[in-house]
Amino acid sequence: MDLVVLEEIKRLKYRYLRGVDLKLWDEVADTFTVDATADYGTHAVGGDGKKFEGREAILEFLTTSLGNGIITVHHAGQPEIEVDGDTATGRWSFTDKVIVPDHKVIIEGAAFYEDTYRRDADGAWRMSHIGYVRTYESMLSWEGNPGFRLLANRWAVPA
Amino acid sequence: MDLVVLEEIKRLKYRYLRGVDLKLWDEVADTFTVDATADYGTHAVGGDGKKFEGREAILEFLTTSLGNGIITVHHAGQPEIEVDGDTATGRWSFTDKVIVPDHKVIIEGAAFYEDTYRRDADGAWRMSHIGYVRTYESMLSWEGNPGFRLLANRWAVPA
Amino acid sequence: MDLVVLEEIKRLKYRYLRGVDLKLWDEVADTFTVDATADYGTHAVGGDGKKFEGREAILEFLTTSLGNGIITVHHAGQPEIEVDGDTATGRWSFTDKVIVPDHKVIIEGAAFYEDTYRRDADGAWRMSHIGYVRTYESMLSWEGNPGFRLLANRWAVPA
Repeated sequence: MDLVVLEEIKRLKYRYLRGVDLKLWDEVADTFTVDATADYGTHAVGGDGKKFEGREAILEFLTTSLGNGIITVHHAGQPEIEVDGDTATGRWSFTDKVIVPDHKVIIEGAAFYEDTYRRDADGAWRMSHIGYVRTYESMLSWEGNPGFRLLANRWAVPA
Repeated sequence: MDLVVLEEIKRLKYRYLRGVDLKLWDEVADTFTVDATADYGTHAVGGDGKKFEGREAILEFLTTSLGNGIITVHHAGQPEIEVDGDTATGRWSFTDKVIVPDHKVIIEGAAFYEDTYRRDADGAWRMSHIGYVRTYESMLSWEGNPGFRLLANRWAVPA
Repeated sequence: MDLVVLEEIKRLKYRYLRGVDLKLWDEVADTFTVDATADYGTHAVGGDGKKFEGREAILEFLTTSLGNGIITVHHAGQPEIEVDGDTATGRWSFTDKVIVPDHKVIIEGAAFYEDTYRRDADGAWRMSHIGYVRTYESMLSWEGNPGFRLLANRWAVPA
């Protein structure tokens, strides 16, 4: 068991997740191989998931979907990673929370990631596939609920 | 500090948690020693916790409690593992979310696991005890709340 | 990459988080250097965060804020730790849930920790700075919502 490689792959995933939540798109781009594929299995906006081919297409989707009007909290844990030379697979428990203040809506869900990783020529591990199947997804509107208040929002533009 | 053993025990726990949420009961069974004990400290259904002796009794409880009418999301993190030869103890932060669509109910809670582990004759680490004490547990009914919708459910049988 | 040091620093953080949620203040005190600083970036009680200098001031804040009337669940994961000799930095994904039964209020939030660590003369790693910036924070009152029930509370004094 190569514990250093395991740590490198975990760090790769954590960098991706932090980059998405903090909207650091250059950092996020560097976590994918150029030919990476994605299958974001969300059901919130209909369809059977959102599939993309190539780093550029994935980034296009993320940057246009996750502007400053959207708060996201992505969490992955419980990594089960299998390394085979310069490629690897990873399973992760995943939860996400998406808050859309303008629409007074919170979407929550859970899933299991089934990723693949590859060590590129520069020695860095990157995601060659990111994908998950949803366990559940729910939506809550706080319209008309005076008991709910958003107290802080990192992306709110001061009035 | 034997980092490989720590990783093996973490993986054991992650396999158990994934198995429970994905209802992979054969995988779950293999994470317990034959003589394992369990103390699932839940308060949702009354009583002072649910205690079981032996892998068979634990699996009987899990398989009969967690059918396709129940969505579960179990998360454990923050492992503090102490290894002593072929036995070990582990403390974990734990949260769970249980959704029962037919009853329009969500149960959420948090706890700290206090487990013990043993390396069996086949070389594999297994849980010899799983147990936790609840920090809190809450129940929310969305009956009569039009603001809540379940958008996706992995276990729903298509109509 | 010194994996043993990484594990020690992770364990330090987990001990701190468990200590806070279980109100084990002596254990918590020992996770800080004497000259530690804190910037608890919460917005729930107004202001631009809560800043403290010195272990004593941090502990004074924690013990007076988090009595038995408050249930807390702090979770940190996704560690990105950089070690440089006897000092280190760490970034963590962080979520918290604070329940105040007497006021029927739940506060939830997410943030990213930006900590620093130091190996003290006794060989133990401790936090020399703990701080975070909030991604969001929300408050929910269940006053007048018969659909919500608190089923278990570790800190409730039996009547």
